[in-house]
Amino acid sequence: MTEKKDRTDDHVVFIGSKPFMNYVTGVVMQFTTQGAKEVIIKARGKFISKAVDIAEVSTKRFLDKTAEIVEIKTDSEEFQNKEGKQVRVSTIELKLIKK
Amino acid sequence: MTEKKDRTDDHVVFIGSKPFMNYVTGVVMQFTTQGAKEVIIKARGKFISKAVDIAEVSTKRFLDKTAEIVEIKTDSEEFQNKEGKQVRVSTIELKLIKK
Repeated sequence: MTEKKDRTDDHVVFIGSKPFMNYVTGVVMQFTTQGAKEVIIKARGKFISKAVDIAEVSTKRFLDKTAEIVEIKTDSEEFQNKEGKQVRVSTIELKLIKK
Repeated sequence: MTEKKDRTDDHVVFIGSKPFMNYVTGVVMQFTTQGAKEVIIKARGKFISKAVDIAEVSTKRFLDKTAEIVEIKTDSEEFQNKEGKQVRVSTIELKLIKK
């Protein structure tokens, strides 16, 4: 059976502790040099503010009038931490599309 | 002329540096004791992650099945800081409604 690849998975940027501009450059290049029609920025916990900043700066300062944030979703994930305690963390997904 | 009050302004919770549960209680009480149909959670900059956490915990842990996040918007604000430098900050608005 042929496995059908979900094409939207190709353009996901997961935000962590690397420098801010690394991610902005990554998002911008997905659109400009890799021809992405859509990029999803994902983050969890304390990196959510950074993800919103990256989405805002990428679209408004670097991709002005060529890309925009069209959908934002949040959710909660539960997992066990190192001490075996159940922990909840918020997640965000910002969908950017080429105009 | 009679000024028409924007009713949605009545139920806005602005997230800052107070303890987390103060805001959760505030949001939950808007729905449960003040009869709000809709509550808007707003935050800027580093408080964006906290605002998402508050929206997630309020709806999923405390208002389970009676309220949900229906719309999330982000934007950028520019202002002059104390040194007279132009600064950009991201903002978020999470709209919660009673189901």
